[in-house]
Amino acid sequence: MNEVTFDWPLRVYYEDTDCAGVVYYANYLKFMERARTEWLRKLGWSQEEMRQSLHLLFVVSEAHVRYRRPAHLDDSLTVRSKISSCKKASLVFSQEILRGEEVLACGEIRCGCLNSDTLRPEAMPENVYKQFCNLAKEDQ
Amino acid sequence: MNEVTFDWPLRVYYEDTDCAGVVYYANYLKFMERARTEWLRKLGWSQEEMRQSLHLLFVVSEAHVRYRRPAHLDDSLTVRSKISSCKKASLVFSQEILRGEEVLACGEIRCGCLNSDTLRPEAMPENVYKQFCNLAKEDQ
Amino acid sequence: MNEVTFDWPLRVYYEDTDCAGVVYYANYLKFMERARTEWLRKLGWSQEEMRQSLHLLFVVSEAHVRYRRPAHLDDSLTVRSKISSCKKASLVFSQEILRGEEVLACGEIRCGCLNSDTLRPEAMPENVYKQFCNLAKEDQ
Amino acid sequence: MNEVTFDWPLRVYYEDTDCAGVVYYANYLKFMERARTEWLRKLGWSQEEMRQSLHLLFVVSEAHVRYRRPAHLDDSLTVRSKISSCKKASLVFSQEILRGEEVLACGEIRCGCLNSDTLRPEAMPENVYKQFCNLAKEDQ
Repeated sequence: MNEVTFDWPLRVYYEDTDCAGVVYYANYLKFMERARTEWLRKLGWSQEEMRQSLHLLFVVSEAHVRYRRPAHLDDSLTVRSKISSCKKASLVFSQEILRGEEVLACGEIRCGCLNSDTLRPEAMPENVYKQFCNLAKEDQ
Repeated sequence: MNEVTFDWPLRVYYEDTDCAGVVYYANYLKFMERARTEWLRKLGWSQEEMRQSLHLLFVVSEAHVRYRRPAHLDDSLTVRSKISSCKKASLVFSQEILRGEEVLACGEIRCGCLNSDTLRPEAMPENVYKQFCNLAKEDQ
Repeated sequence: MNEVTFDWPLRVYYEDTDCAGVVYYANYLKFMERARTEWLRKLGWSQEEMRQSLHLLFVVSEAHVRYRRPAHLDDSLTVRSKISSCKKASLVFSQEILRGEEVLACGEIRCGCLNSDTLRPEAMPENVYKQFCNLAKEDQ
Repeated sequence: MNEVTFDWPLRVYYEDTDCAGVVYYANYLKFMERARTEWLRKLGWSQEEMRQSLHLLFVVSEAHVRYRRPAHLDDSLTVRSKISSCKKASLVFSQEILRGEEVLACGEIRCGCLNSDTLRPEAMPENVYKQFCNLAKEDQ
């Protein structure tokens, strides 16, 4: 089943680069977030709606990125995402930045689920949780 | 003829917003640049190729943006671009940020054409110049 | 009287640059905002306090920037700010980005004063208004 | 000896925040880089000079950040940096983002030393290497 990974394409613009001639390393975190957001959206969950209707917020609690090769202006990249762990109030995403099949960077991003009013950890809704757990399990 | 304007879609992510709850105003310049870049690409010109093969660089020499209404997280926006003036070594783009048909911001962005080695103004290649002039003229 | 201009120093880091080897043009707007914020702070007004205690927000309604010369990594820059116009619910700042006495960019930034709850224009408090008007007048 | 840590102060501006009302998590990497850059500068090494005179470039090869508490607009923060490991062609920095003595985020940032022409690993100059090793050792 190929739904356990989600591929999101993006293009490198001037705004993403720095004067070493490559994509500025902090910007890979933005690329990975765009992919997580679009995956959530595809599964039926807009973060803004979750915040407004369920008072839930996903926040990054840990990010671990390894940079292997630089990306450049005009590169056409893909962010490939999987869920490597799923708990009631947190998720770990494994994400790769690819140019073709070449891996430029890979990251483990832990996201916590918070109540948007109290900013304290809160279990995600059962149906969201089950969706993520299934994605995590099928990847084993 | 509808080629005289170019529409480019984009989505608002957390990275684009600020703690006033809206898109950070400097980021509209990034959105406008993505649209100009993609228009150039559609016309057959990648900026990276132009720099490498023709030693040409487009740089922004003047930006004038009016902000009318805020954009928010998850908004689906369109950047609508026209060329309002075309000279040998410079172009003026008129660009609007739209949410549906609602204009959120509009800008006049003057781009100069530079030699990428000397960083001095240089006429763009005749075929590029003609393409842009035609786009500018047909819009009158 | 030298209080009518406010100088704010800053340093150029990798994050500020792009792969053309210069400061990315949208980032000058960030530099100008840092200077306005620090000027307000020096006058006794933190934006966060204004929002929380007075429900007031300054937002940029118009930005017009001319780029003359590029700034580079490690450059030590100064943002020189003046108030060129002051009304009940809006201010216009004239700001220059300097490297030594060389002007790299100059901008006119119009800021509107909004109620932070309704996001509608609102007159700034009389004492704030007077401070700004005095600064604007003394510059004539 | 207190030279083994380096503290760098900074202020949170609108540009640093997102619509969750906090500092956008990728921006902590920018804060940490500013601190590393200023530490290098204090030790007598400007990155731009190192690139031009020695053809050396420090690039981040791995970043691991844990986010504990959010920072907000107008916060006055400190980046506290140590060198936790030093090899011929790489350094690991341990960095904390502090608000007063409260730790908001901490990161391990691995930087590789590259030849700026070939972009391949290269040993740093002996005197630079010794400086860093001393800093790393004295911290044990």
